[in-house]
Amino acid sequence: MTQAVAGIVRELTASLGGAVITDPVLSVGYRRDQSHLTTFGTPAAVVRARDVSDVVATLQAAHKYGVPVVTRGAGTGLAGGANAVDGCIVLSIERMNRILEIDEEARTAAVEAGVINGDLASAAAACGLWYVPDPGSRDISTIGGNLATNAGGACCAKYGVTADHVARIKAVLPDGQIIHTGASTRKNSAGLNLTQLLVGSEGTLAVIVEATVRLRRKPEGVTTLVASFRDPADAVCAVMRMQSVADPCLAELMDRTTIAAVNRMTKMGLDESAGALLLVQCDGAGATEEVKCCAQACSDSRATELYVTSDAEEGEALMRARRAALTALEQLGSTLLDDLAVPVPQLTHMLEAITHIADRYGLLIGTFGHAADGNLHPTIVFDSRDEEMVLRAHNAFDEMVARCLQLGGSITGEHGVGLLKRRYLTRMVGAAEHQLMAGIKSVFDPGGILNPGRSL
Amino acid sequence: MTQAVAGIVRELTASLGGAVITDPVLSVGYRRDQSHLTTFGTPAAVVRARDVSDVVATLQAAHKYGVPVVTRGAGTGLAGGANAVDGCIVLSIERMNRILEIDEEARTAAVEAGVINGDLASAAAACGLWYVPDPGSRDISTIGGNLATNAGGACCAKYGVTADHVARIKAVLPDGQIIHTGASTRKNSAGLNLTQLLVGSEGTLAVIVEATVRLRRKPEGVTTLVASFRDPADAVCAVMRMQSVADPCLAELMDRTTIAAVNRMTKMGLDESAGALLLVQCDGAGATEEVKCCAQACSDSRATELYVTSDAEEGEALMRARRAALTALEQLGSTLLDDLAVPVPQLTHMLEAITHIADRYGLLIGTFGHAADGNLHPTIVFDSRDEEMVLRAHNAFDEMVARCLQLGGSITGEHGVGLLKRRYLTRMVGAAEHQLMAGIKSVFDPGGILNPGRSL
Repeated sequence: MTQAVAGIVRELTASLGGAVITDPVLSVGYRRDQSHLTTFGTPAAVVRARDVSDVVATLQAAHKYGVPVVTRGAGTGLAGGANAVDGCIVLSIERMNRILEIDEEARTAAVEAGVINGDLASAAAACGLWYVPDPGSRDISTIGGNLATNAGGACCAKYGVTADHVARIKAVLPDGQIIHTGASTRKNSAGLNLTQLLVGSEGTLAVIVEATVRLRRKPEGVTTLVASFRDPADAVCAVMRMQSVADPCLAELMDRTTIAAVNRMTKMGLDESAGALLLVQCDGAGATEEVKCCAQACSDSRATELYVTSDAEEGEALMRARRAALTALEQLGSTLLDDLAVPVPQLTHMLEAITHIADRYGLLIGTFGHAADGNLHPTIVFDSRDEEMVLRAHNAFDEMVARCLQLGGSITGEHGVGLLKRRYLTRMVGAAEHQLMAGIKSVFDPGGILNPGRSL
Repeated sequence: MTQAVAGIVRELTASLGGAVITDPVLSVGYRRDQSHLTTFGTPAAVVRARDVSDVVATLQAAHKYGVPVVTRGAGTGLAGGANAVDGCIVLSIERMNRILEIDEEARTAAVEAGVINGDLASAAAACGLWYVPDPGSRDISTIGGNLATNAGGACCAKYGVTADHVARIKAVLPDGQIIHTGASTRKNSAGLNLTQLLVGSEGTLAVIVEATVRLRRKPEGVTTLVASFRDPADAVCAVMRMQSVADPCLAELMDRTTIAAVNRMTKMGLDESAGALLLVQCDGAGATEEVKCCAQACSDSRATELYVTSDAEEGEALMRARRAALTALEQLGSTLLDDLAVPVPQLTHMLEAITHIADRYGLLIGTFGHAADGNLHPTIVFDSRDEEMVLRAHNAFDEMVARCLQLGGSITGEHGVGLLKRRYLTRMVGAAEHQLMAGIKSVFDPGGILNPGRSL
């Protein structure tokens, strides 16, 4: 342990007492997030902040000693963005989980960063309102983490991602200064948009401690459509067709491998003869009418089976099948989950590429994702004890990312860059653009202590 | 003329030829935007860039000579953001007006920054698509200017502002380097969000030369509702009520002064007995149903008159009445137009404050705006030859902004900070936040040559 690290641990223990964990046995759960094949180190201490003043104290000490700080919410990230580095302070905001205010008239909620997405959604629903962003992790992930990665979800196609629902952010700079960004108003053109700069910055600029998010009226009448296709290309065609005649809130895709895995785990009896399955929902006053148009779009695109239901529970059960996709694939081995986004018309090429890559490398890859956004999660299944296979998985992953970039895509739609995608970032954004990002990082964090080696 | 200025004018004239205007008689129209009571200077030259290479050449020369550059689109700004400073180069992008591509399948359009918003909207409509952002200036303002100010419009309540519809930006840094930000995909969590940093930055960070914007399917079936209220507070109450039962795309408000001015100019016969008039539109498959709910919300809020039409042309005629508001008020004298945004529930307090301020200063203030967003344009009418009255107008303006900030509002909803609002910016965003903005500015523009004295 260096002198600086010893100094900060002593100082934090003295000032924050029980909020500080230094026993490596107790801090083991704070070393990494849920990503696979990303590196992680051992923190010198974990601070489980109880409030903003704990965050300020932690950062002031880190600033003074020049010790790195890795902030984490619930640790559900899938790109290593919250993985500890050796000798760092892990700053956990999971205990800062108070919903500070729900303003029903203004339709906003002010929350601490450690509030679980699903808890906010429930509290909003109790007031007849809706917190929209619905990442797959919504029952276990925090608003702070959602903001840090700009988390997506299923219904982004119609309602946008986390970034689109945040009005204000309260954050702490690495020297302990508190800042407030944005405005509570729907429109705001005053100065540079610091709010959108913090969203997706993965803890590299400041520590988000509170946010004011926008709530919506929940539209009534969700109608659900399930369609099977022999060829995944037909499913993509159907998505494009339906988006030209309706405004579906989601259009989720599962490929054959994923369908089989979900059936195996859940015994749901999804159509295993299908090459791809689409799950579509429309909402609002025109939901039934819109789903009719979507069903027609599927028929016109050679759907082999169609099923429509306006029953909310049945719709939810079908959505659960889709949400089970990753867990179901995890039953088959170790997994390396990707998060690629391409323009919707390029989805066919991306799906074809994934199939070819799987064949070429002799790997099982199950693909599911948010077809309406062009956001896919091809998931490589492998045996982590087989070194040669791990290498093949890595190479297949590299090739998928490369093909995605060729198709005009993004290396990450909703999981963030973290450690997993860092080597692809400059290739995607360009050298001059990357240099600007580094310059901005230096403005916020001149000492480079926040989440070093992450994202940019 | 300093040596540097003489040098750059000589160099630009030599390299860009006919694109450069140095005759002050010919450049007089490039000295200012459409704002009133903002200062402006005389440029050393105007470059009417024909393409990106003209922009690069201009910035390289300005960088070399350390001469300020003020970029302008169509000059329709209302905050002095494009006003020249003495001895600067005005860089006009109005001739860069090519629509480069409309990708019907991906539903995006790539345009040069000088394309007129309305021209893009028409071209999109010809492909059965919709470019949503609809600032009042849409027939005369450019996409580049819309991006620079994060322009709003009427239907932002449902569909968002300019920022919400841009996917990628191509821009030139002050040293002539070209950057590309964002991604063509709907979702993108890769690196810091440079796109949203450029949006609303009012030409202070880089010169936007191209943008890829998102297009939507145009929903059918617009239904329009007009409601009169004795008391403006009732109109605000109606807006809140309707937003809790429907999703109107717009809810435009006009106060008594504005109604009278519009009637005087257009002879439209709007209800002059009303204290406020609301113009509401719903669209999509459920439009008729939704307007019914909105009409009920108005009745429940003591509306004195209600009128509903599903006739598109009649709806458009009513919208024209609203759009005529500023022009109608301009018939009454010189105007000082404000652009305040408050949370919707605070609209009543803001409207009351405006009335009190008008009374106290003995000024006519006509207020209209986007009630669904809490975005108001109180417009002070005065005699510009009467110095004492000009002073009163300034003071009344100051007080409106101060009250808006007290109510948790933003000093600008959609016009930008420009020169007009610069003295209020730090008060709104805070000193630490303002310093971060200045730091970011230095990363992009270390020499401080882009739009000096503007915005941040």
